[in-house]
Amino acid sequence: MARTVIRGGLVVTAAEEVEADVLVEDDKVAALALRGSDTARTWADSGADVIDAAGHYVIPGGVDAHTHMEMPFGGTESADTFETGTRAAAWGGTTTIVDFAIQRPGQAVRDGVDAWMAKADDQCAVDYSFHAILSDVNESSLKEMDVLVDEGITSFKLFMAYPGVFYSDDGQILRAMQRGAANGALTMMHAENGIAIDVLVEQALAEGRTDPRYHGEVRKALLESEATHRAIQLARVAGAPLYVVHVSANEAVEELSRARAKGLNVFGETCPQYLFLSTDNLAEPDFEGAKYVCSTPLRPKEHQEHLWRALRTNDLSVVSTDHCPFCFSGQKDMGRGDFSKIPNGMPGVENRMDLLHQAVVDGHISRRRWIEIACATPARMFGLYPRKGTVSPGADADLVVYDPAAEQVVSAETHHMNVDYSAYEGRRLTGRARTVLSRGRVVVDDGAYLGEAGHGRFVPRSTCQYLV
Amino acid sequence: MARTVIRGGLVVTAAEEVEADVLVEDDKVAALALRGSDTARTWADSGADVIDAAGHYVIPGGVDAHTHMEMPFGGTESADTFETGTRAAAWGGTTTIVDFAIQRPGQAVRDGVDAWMAKADDQCAVDYSFHAILSDVNESSLKEMDVLVDEGITSFKLFMAYPGVFYSDDGQILRAMQRGAANGALTMMHAENGIAIDVLVEQALAEGRTDPRYHGEVRKALLESEATHRAIQLARVAGAPLYVVHVSANEAVEELSRARAKGLNVFGETCPQYLFLSTDNLAEPDFEGAKYVCSTPLRPKEHQEHLWRALRTNDLSVVSTDHCPFCFSGQKDMGRGDFSKIPNGMPGVENRMDLLHQAVVDGHISRRRWIEIACATPARMFGLYPRKGTVSPGADADLVVYDPAAEQVVSAETHHMNVDYSAYEGRRLTGRARTVLSRGRVVVDDGAYLGEAGHGRFVPRSTCQYLV
Amino acid sequence: MARTVIRGGLVVTAAEEVEADVLVEDDKVAALALRGSDTARTWADSGADVIDAAGHYVIPGGVDAHTHMEMPFGGTESADTFETGTRAAAWGGTTTIVDFAIQRPGQAVRDGVDAWMAKADDQCAVDYSFHAILSDVNESSLKEMDVLVDEGITSFKLFMAYPGVFYSDDGQILRAMQRGAANGALTMMHAENGIAIDVLVEQALAEGRTDPRYHGEVRKALLESEATHRAIQLARVAGAPLYVVHVSANEAVEELSRARAKGLNVFGETCPQYLFLSTDNLAEPDFEGAKYVCSTPLRPKEHQEHLWRALRTNDLSVVSTDHCPFCFSGQKDMGRGDFSKIPNGMPGVENRMDLLHQAVVDGHISRRRWIEIACATPARMFGLYPRKGTVSPGADADLVVYDPAAEQVVSAETHHMNVDYSAYEGRRLTGRARTVLSRGRVVVDDGAYLGEAGHGRFVPRSTCQYLV
Amino acid sequence: MARTVIRGGLVVTAAEEVEADVLVEDDKVAALALRGSDTARTWADSGADVIDAAGHYVIPGGVDAHTHMEMPFGGTESADTFETGTRAAAWGGTTTIVDFAIQRPGQAVRDGVDAWMAKADDQCAVDYSFHAILSDVNESSLKEMDVLVDEGITSFKLFMAYPGVFYSDDGQILRAMQRGAANGALTMMHAENGIAIDVLVEQALAEGRTDPRYHGEVRKALLESEATHRAIQLARVAGAPLYVVHVSANEAVEELSRARAKGLNVFGETCPQYLFLSTDNLAEPDFEGAKYVCSTPLRPKEHQEHLWRALRTNDLSVVSTDHCPFCFSGQKDMGRGDFSKIPNGMPGVENRMDLLHQAVVDGHISRRRWIEIACATPARMFGLYPRKGTVSPGADADLVVYDPAAEQVVSAETHHMNVDYSAYEGRRLTGRARTVLSRGRVVVDDGAYLGEAGHGRFVPRSTCQYLV
Repeated sequence: MARTVIRGGLVVTAAEEVEADVLVEDDKVAALALRGSDTARTWADSGADVIDAAGHYVIPGGVDAHTHMEMPFGGTESADTFETGTRAAAWGGTTTIVDFAIQRPGQAVRDGVDAWMAKADDQCAVDYSFHAILSDVNESSLKEMDVLVDEGITSFKLFMAYPGVFYSDDGQILRAMQRGAANGALTMMHAENGIAIDVLVEQALAEGRTDPRYHGEVRKALLESEATHRAIQLARVAGAPLYVVHVSANEAVEELSRARAKGLNVFGETCPQYLFLSTDNLAEPDFEGAKYVCSTPLRPKEHQEHLWRALRTNDLSVVSTDHCPFCFSGQKDMGRGDFSKIPNGMPGVENRMDLLHQAVVDGHISRRRWIEIACATPARMFGLYPRKGTVSPGADADLVVYDPAAEQVVSAETHHMNVDYSAYEGRRLTGRARTVLSRGRVVVDDGAYLGEAGHGRFVPRSTCQYLV
Repeated sequence: MARTVIRGGLVVTAAEEVEADVLVEDDKVAALALRGSDTARTWADSGADVIDAAGHYVIPGGVDAHTHMEMPFGGTESADTFETGTRAAAWGGTTTIVDFAIQRPGQAVRDGVDAWMAKADDQCAVDYSFHAILSDVNESSLKEMDVLVDEGITSFKLFMAYPGVFYSDDGQILRAMQRGAANGALTMMHAENGIAIDVLVEQALAEGRTDPRYHGEVRKALLESEATHRAIQLARVAGAPLYVVHVSANEAVEELSRARAKGLNVFGETCPQYLFLSTDNLAEPDFEGAKYVCSTPLRPKEHQEHLWRALRTNDLSVVSTDHCPFCFSGQKDMGRGDFSKIPNGMPGVENRMDLLHQAVVDGHISRRRWIEIACATPARMFGLYPRKGTVSPGADADLVVYDPAAEQVVSAETHHMNVDYSAYEGRRLTGRARTVLSRGRVVVDDGAYLGEAGHGRFVPRSTCQYLV
Repeated sequence: MARTVIRGGLVVTAAEEVEADVLVEDDKVAALALRGSDTARTWADSGADVIDAAGHYVIPGGVDAHTHMEMPFGGTESADTFETGTRAAAWGGTTTIVDFAIQRPGQAVRDGVDAWMAKADDQCAVDYSFHAILSDVNESSLKEMDVLVDEGITSFKLFMAYPGVFYSDDGQILRAMQRGAANGALTMMHAENGIAIDVLVEQALAEGRTDPRYHGEVRKALLESEATHRAIQLARVAGAPLYVVHVSANEAVEELSRARAKGLNVFGETCPQYLFLSTDNLAEPDFEGAKYVCSTPLRPKEHQEHLWRALRTNDLSVVSTDHCPFCFSGQKDMGRGDFSKIPNGMPGVENRMDLLHQAVVDGHISRRRWIEIACATPARMFGLYPRKGTVSPGADADLVVYDPAAEQVVSAETHHMNVDYSAYEGRRLTGRARTVLSRGRVVVDDGAYLGEAGHGRFVPRSTCQYLV
Repeated sequence: MARTVIRGGLVVTAAEEVEADVLVEDDKVAALALRGSDTARTWADSGADVIDAAGHYVIPGGVDAHTHMEMPFGGTESADTFETGTRAAAWGGTTTIVDFAIQRPGQAVRDGVDAWMAKADDQCAVDYSFHAILSDVNESSLKEMDVLVDEGITSFKLFMAYPGVFYSDDGQILRAMQRGAANGALTMMHAENGIAIDVLVEQALAEGRTDPRYHGEVRKALLESEATHRAIQLARVAGAPLYVVHVSANEAVEELSRARAKGLNVFGETCPQYLFLSTDNLAEPDFEGAKYVCSTPLRPKEHQEHLWRALRTNDLSVVSTDHCPFCFSGQKDMGRGDFSKIPNGMPGVENRMDLLHQAVVDGHISRRRWIEIACATPARMFGLYPRKGTVSPGADADLVVYDPAAEQVVSAETHHMNVDYSAYEGRRLTGRARTVLSRGRVVVDDGAYLGEAGHGRFVPRSTCQYLV
């Protein structure tokens, strides 16, 4: 049996900050002991490998519940493969991703799941799991949901946007939610009124408003909050829980807040881009704004303070990346002269943990809340807890020795994601993962990648752990 | 010139209660004079016809902004013709109706308007006007809106319910609202999420829940409030005003209330059936519940007090009837064994003024508010003021001498609507119209009908008078 | 009998805009007749005096429900006597004021009423009435309330501010409200948490923050909204109606809005200074800010749009002046070096109607709403309707022929109030009263004052007409 | 060094449920190890004492942040001494209490602290700490606050109720909050409008409404929510955090909820009596209602579901007991014929952990939330974390081996509190503490008390750990 002791660090979880040594046996956390206690001393003497964490935090590996590797979109495909994307995740201190397997209209859900399983198989640096996207809710796909839940695919994403592609109408949404209420699945929702947005897109293009910034103008905050409200009401009718992805508008947060004050099982996710970027970026000249085109879109800067507040009040519970990178050159530029043709998505899987640590430094959130929104809550939300998301006896030894004082400058030149730009180019951050373990194995250490494709395994998930 | 003096009554308008005599010259109100003043005395001496109103109210004739005469629905047609329906209106103290001309999918809006104009022509006992129903919003029908507004058809109804029949999607709604924002038209909305409701209807029928009361269960309050919220947000995006018809659920009222507190041009209408009837009626045995099938549906009794309150706070501004009668025998019974086949609608055009006077007697609303919600506000809302809805110099002499102490028992045996049941059978009411004038002509007096088909004329309307 | 016809104007009331001639018999409005009708023509031929109102509005005289003439405050007295103040009111188109008779601690309420009756007797240019201020709520003063209500003093003002002067504690407030609930009196409230404010005043002065602008800083918006909320809750416990005077903070408006959405009998008043002035004025250099010291204080500019919106939504129902002038020289300067010694109050009784007409010109409110908030609602609120506040048969002939196109520049050099500065100095306004009648007598005409002290009479009032 | 292993249980904390063995070294938790891991096996072999927890939970000892032992009130004293009260606490699985040291008007705060320190010294079975009650806020007592915070008394309670006894006016409250904002102290608030309540008390007694149930009627929910709102606004003005004690009315919860949605540092506590009892108990005949007289009072049953929901949404964060027992015979009966003379308070320190476990059984809250509201949050709130409130390396070994399947019937005959009745007499509960450790020492085991007076020590506290 392999034994490793991580010694001298401050163990930070969503719940505690403890000066404790962590004992790893094989791929699990076996024990925590007070630094300097008799027990801790015996570990050091037992011949275990020792990782020195003095002056560092020992935190659970990040859980990124929203990524899109190798995803086809608008005639191209997101630039990170499961290999490059999960490696970049590891570099950034994230040790679990939950990606999306896509059902196509006319296809079985199973077909999508099989396809994505095949893409990821033997490629990943860290563990991974899948949500399923339902693009064709019908009697048959509803039945498939039950089977997939049993197999560990316990969350299903629906789209109120993208008519003709992923869009489900309110009847399909209601049926899928009813099924989820019965089989325990969690409904994830892209909440934008795509039918109305498409009218505004057409009008903008017809009037010659074709630059990237119009992407932000036509996808109005009111049409995000409207859809959010509607999704909540449909969930109430179905008696089902709801998880709203990539919330960007304050008005949408208010709908979540009203629902949560009623005690409803409604949850919200936001992403670093909404917390750190704004429509100012979308308006960058020379088509540079295209780098920031994603949906829901970036909002005016004043929304940021509301999102931070909601993260503190828990009206937003999770920060995922919606990592979906497209190169500026060769992909984003498909939309020159027509913003609606710019592939939607941004890179970020490598930056999330550090950006959120910066928020700790800046005073937006506490250290424990950092771990909660980035590790513990996504793990609980999607049935991965306590294997993932915490540091406790029995948990997977997905651990990060984090240097809270390290300085870095984000740049496409140094990042490990397979994309030719960084959305955070030139930004100075304090804090960085020094050593990263995935199930007990060191995969990144002090600037060296020690992992390998195929180490990461598919993790079947239980159902959402927040439903009382 | 014909001169008539209505003498000795208490003139009640939305704004005033004055002991004044009213002088009618031809078809207009020419003057009001303080009872007993020199001027009033000269009128009496001038040889004018005198109508004695001592002990009575003198009120403006009622304006019913929501009726459906001779309307095709589900393979049958509403039982009142323009002749029988407007005659019944006159009996009940209502001297103006605004009915709906229906565009069919594939048709021009104009076709519907022409058809309804023809139905009403030379038939009506009192004045009438039309809203247009848009069932096929497209480039062509949007252009027709502009023309119709100029012709005095200044309000357009859309449906979020009835997919495949009247239903417009959110993009069509947005486009029509944008057009209305430009040409001054008011958008009227049937706010129920019909797509979701149809799922619940199908499930109910599949499970054998086929009785009339299930009509009320599947058309959930949350699906009314959801649609109400959505319509409001679409109106905000379009910068357009909104009038929500037949609001029945407290949850929908709350959405109106939130919007109005923001100062938005959002208005709500309810109907007597929601104020006086409930799901208890829908649950009446032996298929009797079918008499009360209409959409939005009747709600549990506890909603009534919220509707009354909203009428007091002006979060609801208008009470119309949505008069759309189908005989129990031969029409309603098309839905035995399948509630979804019951024609939707109820009679009421004759009862509205009296039911609302009863609310004055019961203390729900003040006397002036009675006139406001039943006469003045619908007239202003739909561009008929000050010709209709008030008693002031220059107004049409549509006047009712109302006996506030008369006792009546409502019954199908005595009512004048062309339908074989009354929704209020056996109900005792205090108050009744004694003498009714339409443009200066006495059409009902002391239990005798003195009017004639064709006296009533089409009234072109200006745009909504509540938009600052 | 004296007969006057006001001919050719547009009669504007809260409810109607009618092209009608108005016949005055002695001191009452006898009749309105459609311009050009036979009846109107007979009036012109009858030898009545004729006032030409062509191109003008004919409106009810203004009702200013909140003035303080000759009021002792902080060792001085407000600068307008009942003679000068009511004359200035007449100049400005206001034909009724309701002033405040002050009970002093240890005194009977009656003593205050008698004193103020004596001050006003034979002095006033236009009609007047009194509210009573209760500064000493006890068993005896509670009993006096019943008597005073019978005598036509039907509203009683309490202060949550000014401890040691006018202040009542929550127990006294509750008792007075309970009594009002029983005898029909309306409780008026100065809603600021004076106990907390006095702490902040003391701290500011101790720290050398003594300039006028600190008056605005210590009287925090949150302490206005707190008191407003508290007053509302006490009124709910007592089952009593509530009228909150001089609302200036948006946060306070929100409390009124919440209460009114519940259907409570809660009403709000604001004043022109809060709509047109701001803390920018309070910060004017060289102690000029003292001119704008009043309580509640002026607020930052961004509150203004919320107040206008609340006037449109009727969450605020009345605009009064709180006219309480102190000369800059000799009175305001008592507070140099100590803002707490600046007499609280501003002039305005002469400017209100014109400032609010300017709001019509600027698009904040409609013409009818202008009359509603300035004439009709204060009259109804305080039991003066329909004698005051409207133009209808039987009403007092308090009428203003208003020139909507006249241009004026407000200035202390030309105003008629007895105070050495104008709060609106140099402001250009469109609109002005040309001819003013008080009970049928012309008191101002075309720049000449034709009235006399003593024409104005005390008007006993009935109880609030808004309580259903 | 003493070593104890608690073996085979499910360790439940606010954050985790782990199948782990717990190693205690002397008075601290030294380590947790996965059950069956190599490390855990070495402990068992090391000669440590072993406590078998198979089939049981291992939880942190309860933290009751609100007790009143030996408290003088209305001429008598609460019936539990620090000795009997803390012993009863230990029986019930509570290992830390925070009691209140009372400043009397005219006294120094220090005098109260010294007096209570002396009462508790050498008497307690488990650890204890003190809040200070401020009954006389003045310059001197404000200065004392700074010193006391440094000594570990970091929270100060103020009363908006009980005029003439504990009451502070809004100015005193504001000053104390400002001081707390500066020195880190947390303000605790008894939020009821005592001035208004006293008016209602006097009126009730004058009208012969003297039975215990009138205690509940005069202390109206609106007067609790009013005071709650006011306290929140004063805290906002001061920039200070606020903890509202013993929240019982849904209306008060709503005020907390609004404040927390804004991200304010406002926290709420409720008590078991409000969750399990109601005005039905207050109305028990033969003066039995007096047993349930406490302030805030019990509310109608329908409030309970709102309190449970608020505990789930975290709008209420803590459940304390407000333990303040008075014997029915000899104490409560001082108020026969005058409910205002009934000593306010109820026993409960022994029942809290079990009642809340019952709520887990009943489905109101999750197991982890049970520990959070009863142990972890009160510890964090009052600066005791992580010594108290959790099971983690370095924490005090205050541990409870809890039998979730044990059945008990609550009764005064078997309880250990020094009071002649139980508020929960006859209630069947599932769950009970089997073994209780205080700082590593077993004080209760399997129905035997093994502790001793004086084992419990005063714990100085750091400041609130929830303020970002």
